[in-house]
Amino acid sequence: MSYQPGQKGVVVQNIERADQAVIDGLAECGVATVHEAQGRKGLLASYMRPIYPGARIAGSAVTMLSAACDNWMVHVCIEQLQEGDIMVLGTMSPCDNGYFGDLLATSAMARGCRGLVIDAGVRDVADLTKMGFPVWSRAISAQGTVKETLGDVNVPIVCAGQTIEAGDVIVADDDGVCVVRRADAARVLTKAEERLENEEAKRKRLASGELGLDLYDMRPRLAEKGLKYV
Amino acid sequence: MSYQPGQKGVVVQNIERADQAVIDGLAECGVATVHEAQGRKGLLASYMRPIYPGARIAGSAVTMLSAACDNWMVHVCIEQLQEGDIMVLGTMSPCDNGYFGDLLATSAMARGCRGLVIDAGVRDVADLTKMGFPVWSRAISAQGTVKETLGDVNVPIVCAGQTIEAGDVIVADDDGVCVVRRADAARVLTKAEERLENEEAKRKRLASGELGLDLYDMRPRLAEKGLKYV
Amino acid sequence: MSYQPGQKGVVVQNIERADQAVIDGLAECGVATVHEAQGRKGLLASYMRPIYPGARIAGSAVTMLSAACDNWMVHVCIEQLQEGDIMVLGTMSPCDNGYFGDLLATSAMARGCRGLVIDAGVRDVADLTKMGFPVWSRAISAQGTVKETLGDVNVPIVCAGQTIEAGDVIVADDDGVCVVRRADAARVLTKAEERLENEEAKRKRLASGELGLDLYDMRPRLAEKGLKYV
Amino acid sequence: MSYQPGQKGVVVQNIERADQAVIDGLAECGVATVHEAQGRKGLLASYMRPIYPGARIAGSAVTMLSAACDNWMVHVCIEQLQEGDIMVLGTMSPCDNGYFGDLLATSAMARGCRGLVIDAGVRDVADLTKMGFPVWSRAISAQGTVKETLGDVNVPIVCAGQTIEAGDVIVADDDGVCVVRRADAARVLTKAEERLENEEAKRKRLASGELGLDLYDMRPRLAEKGLKYV
Amino acid sequence: MSYQPGQKGVVVQNIERADQAVIDGLAECGVATVHEAQGRKGLLASYMRPIYPGARIAGSAVTMLSAACDNWMVHVCIEQLQEGDIMVLGTMSPCDNGYFGDLLATSAMARGCRGLVIDAGVRDVADLTKMGFPVWSRAISAQGTVKETLGDVNVPIVCAGQTIEAGDVIVADDDGVCVVRRADAARVLTKAEERLENEEAKRKRLASGELGLDLYDMRPRLAEKGLKYV
Amino acid sequence: MSYQPGQKGVVVQNIERADQAVIDGLAECGVATVHEAQGRKGLLASYMRPIYPGARIAGSAVTMLSAACDNWMVHVCIEQLQEGDIMVLGTMSPCDNGYFGDLLATSAMARGCRGLVIDAGVRDVADLTKMGFPVWSRAISAQGTVKETLGDVNVPIVCAGQTIEAGDVIVADDDGVCVVRRADAARVLTKAEERLENEEAKRKRLASGELGLDLYDMRPRLAEKGLKYV
Repeated sequence: MSYQPGQKGVVVQNIERADQAVIDGLAECGVATVHEAQGRKGLLASYMRPIYPGARIAGSAVTMLSAACDNWMVHVCIEQLQEGDIMVLGTMSPCDNGYFGDLLATSAMARGCRGLVIDAGVRDVADLTKMGFPVWSRAISAQGTVKETLGDVNVPIVCAGQTIEAGDVIVADDDGVCVVRRADAARVLTKAEERLENEEAKRKRLASGELGLDLYDMRPRLAEKGLKYV
Repeated sequence: MSYQPGQKGVVVQNIERADQAVIDGLAECGVATVHEAQGRKGLLASYMRPIYPGARIAGSAVTMLSAACDNWMVHVCIEQLQEGDIMVLGTMSPCDNGYFGDLLATSAMARGCRGLVIDAGVRDVADLTKMGFPVWSRAISAQGTVKETLGDVNVPIVCAGQTIEAGDVIVADDDGVCVVRRADAARVLTKAEERLENEEAKRKRLASGELGLDLYDMRPRLAEKGLKYV
Repeated sequence: MSYQPGQKGVVVQNIERADQAVIDGLAECGVATVHEAQGRKGLLASYMRPIYPGARIAGSAVTMLSAACDNWMVHVCIEQLQEGDIMVLGTMSPCDNGYFGDLLATSAMARGCRGLVIDAGVRDVADLTKMGFPVWSRAISAQGTVKETLGDVNVPIVCAGQTIEAGDVIVADDDGVCVVRRADAARVLTKAEERLENEEAKRKRLASGELGLDLYDMRPRLAEKGLKYV
Repeated sequence: MSYQPGQKGVVVQNIERADQAVIDGLAECGVATVHEAQGRKGLLASYMRPIYPGARIAGSAVTMLSAACDNWMVHVCIEQLQEGDIMVLGTMSPCDNGYFGDLLATSAMARGCRGLVIDAGVRDVADLTKMGFPVWSRAISAQGTVKETLGDVNVPIVCAGQTIEAGDVIVADDDGVCVVRRADAARVLTKAEERLENEEAKRKRLASGELGLDLYDMRPRLAEKGLKYV
Repeated sequence: MSYQPGQKGVVVQNIERADQAVIDGLAECGVATVHEAQGRKGLLASYMRPIYPGARIAGSAVTMLSAACDNWMVHVCIEQLQEGDIMVLGTMSPCDNGYFGDLLATSAMARGCRGLVIDAGVRDVADLTKMGFPVWSRAISAQGTVKETLGDVNVPIVCAGQTIEAGDVIVADDDGVCVVRRADAARVLTKAEERLENEEAKRKRLASGELGLDLYDMRPRLAEKGLKYV
Repeated sequence: MSYQPGQKGVVVQNIERADQAVIDGLAECGVATVHEAQGRKGLLASYMRPIYPGARIAGSAVTMLSAACDNWMVHVCIEQLQEGDIMVLGTMSPCDNGYFGDLLATSAMARGCRGLVIDAGVRDVADLTKMGFPVWSRAISAQGTVKETLGDVNVPIVCAGQTIEAGDVIVADDDGVCVVRRADAARVLTKAEERLENEEAKRKRLASGELGLDLYDMRPRLAEKGLKYV
């Protein structure tokens, strides 16, 4: 039975995931490079911030759509996690309450989960930091949630302005969070790696004092547009 | 003479405080646990953020109501501080200016003050970080304030959405700030400690891979609500 | 030929800078002290936050006015940088996209640039942190920009609520960003240093337990305004 | 049995109200005058906006504390309404969902309710406008709420930054919302009416071209502070 | 040739639309009723506000994905409009500039367009009001846009937090904007009309003074949850 | 004696103004047209909203720089007003308090003032609406201000992100507020009128069903960029 949009209370159990080596390659490239490599799409809104600096991860999205201020589906979601997954939570209406804390993180880590991307609040951030469980969220709040309303797991959701489907690849670091469609992951990795290689060459030239104006041959077009030096 | 609400320019000098051992116990429990233990009330708005990560404190509230962009009452307030107190500042209208910096912190620390919770701005945050004086604020701003208008000290105030009375217990950490009524402090500590103990047991079971769905026996109620696995 | 306000596509090449020793002195004083010393003007809006804590810099402003979501002028600007400069970017309309990342920082550092103040977004913040290139920005975003529209370099701009002219001195630290007019720099430094010296004496007295109420002789004026102790 | 702060699920049935003639007098004075007359306290945050322009009301507060995104207590509250009351709703954590629409307004109007002040969302605003039922809210949203969690009725709440007790007088117009303590209402009305009379005289003088500088005799103090005309 | 997600510069020309009578029926029901009738999904974020009060429309979505601050695709989109359509614009990154004004509205109206829903800015609002062309937007801004970067027309977009596909039904009024999947439109209309009829009966009973507590039989469940009257 | 930037407490009494006929012409053109005509500069931030719809004015800026939450300089400013002027207020740090109400408006109108543009709050908006005195502000708030700190009158200020000098022309309508440099006013009016004339012709063609794609000859460049119709 396929998923009918609009249903509430559906858990899709079998999702396809991208190749793990591709996912790990995307993590190494980082958000800014991956975002550029796939044509500048898929970036979540800039209000999504990491709870601590320095984490850089990628994984397969296990998605949740939750009611406002209701974290019941997080428990349901955790059962669907596999090694290397990232939980991604969208809400039916905005809520900054803390949907997730150290106990849920303990459970998720026991299943190999790499992190959480949540368009809502998180709590126990000191503990999560010690545990090394990275979270990107819109808020930090100790205010808890209820468990009253069903949502869905592994259905397409909107999280921080992007549509995310189960099995899409999530890349997250200090620059934010980007989603790569599962089917595009390998192609995007190839482009991202080319980009990094290309950047490495440019970095050396720029470090030696060569100007971007010359490296990218911008002077003629600037002049044509009418740039005047006075 | 008792305090008449609405007066301006009143300093209440003798306030009752909770038992220091109870206060210190609440600090160890942390904001999220204390907030849950007292029935999910008393949490300040999530825009109140610590100026540096990792601090976890509790203390008796010494409250101030200040005019917008006027920090005169901070000086008045410091005289009322005792060992183990936390200053809490609310304003008559919103202002992000820096009401507080390293000199005031030096003075407050000399009286045993443990930190500041301020619904306004703070400055000298690099110095405050070096001094280990934690502040939770709505803004960081070098813009100073004036000393023209009287406010009140140790009267009930609203700070970041919560009513706070002098002598209430303030708990603050990376998750935010919570207020516990003085009279409730001992009872809340008992519940918070029970909660922590209970969580410790759950943590082990979750870490071993047991699911919250089973640990909390959620499956029957989810089924009853109509959750479908597809 | 002098700069005509309203033109687009002008690069002013020769700007005057303040004395480097004065600039370095202002850096040591820090934002809060410099801001007070010059009569509480010149502070940029408090939404301008450093990408990592602990940096404290000063430098001569090399200014840019850029179109929304268009970073072309950053490349033009870098050619104008000298040892000790700080790039300052204002936009024609608000945009949170990442105008600046590690390659541009590499190029700017090769010319001796000390940092960037940008009323827009920045990316590659993990790399910038490792490189020790400090940035104060309104947002962190991996979303890139285009190179289509001319702006201006070294013209007066508005950045985060302050007018900034090329050659003004920028001071930036964890408290935010302040601009000092080039012609005022030496005078402001003198006042700032006096202020620091004065503060040092006060700090010792406050640390020993003396109250600000007495140190600043506030009691008579508080009484005159009607402050009541109850 | 008296109300114990912190309980959930309490409805206080008998509340004292201010004299209706006083309340009606305060409505005529309007928010800005009443706020000044009581010493500039009691103003709710400026994000509270009327759903349509031109309403000016006052009434006795019937208060509610509701869970986030849960409007169950509105139904409970309506039973407590008397002719001339205003419902005032605060939430346990922030929520912009629409707690209130035309059916609830129909019910409230049947009991003589004059309006709603809600630190959350409202919906059916076109209908409410046609019905002439004024609402001051932080948001307009068609997103509904649940009925799962108990709150309290006629307990002290915080609404948009102010503590409000049942029976306090609420004044609301296009300038916002102000609360007057029940016990202060008569005294505040007297001052407000004096103020209006006083303003009427000033208005005529100002309309004839006399300057505030002269009317309020500001010139000497401005000169003393050092104002220079150039 | 089918649309490949991630492409830029694609205009899908033939889209399916819902039955016009169904669409018109949904307009009469209004946003709040339609949103409830379809199970509380599809509501756009509450920051989307009408430029003038009183409009209530429904139509088939003709979607656009535009670059930040670039309105080129609006011109492309207008060619795809049919009688009864509503234009819906999402952006690749946030921008408040005015993408749309009276000339574009003139052109859209000439093709029978009923309105615009835009997750960006709009201008000429006084003219649009006179013309009776309703717009729901996140901002009003006279700042124009460029025409440099291709986007897509009639592809799935995210607008104000909701995924919208070409041909979906958009309903918009003073309460905000809601999207109904094309395939669900007839079913949702039936439910919405039932709901309205049901509400009409309730309205009469509530207007006569019957309480919601009794009408919805809430008293037993409130008592069971522990509500106490004191 | 000329104005020294950085001074506080200076009132510049003689300012030059643009030709009144030019100013009135700019009012007729409106903000969006004027902004385009002068090359898309000078637009104030979009958070500046009119207190009532439908006003369209232009006038010579009489500027004020005020301390946070201190409206003393408004009284000083009013003395400097001439027939046809618009008051423009910037603050030294952000404040939403109501700096201005009906008495000040009465006084300003007595001197021929056409309106107020204020990067802060305003109050008595129902009265101002009745009086027909238009205000563009960042907030509406009944919270008053103090009169303690000197500012400046007729010095260059930053208001809502734009530098404004005394005598500059301010144009304001439902789209927002735009500043035109005094020296540019006549030239900008000419361009704005050309633009309006040109738009009139286009409006007719668009109203008749001609597409912008053809009217502006966009098809070749869209094809060149790679737009595909599917």
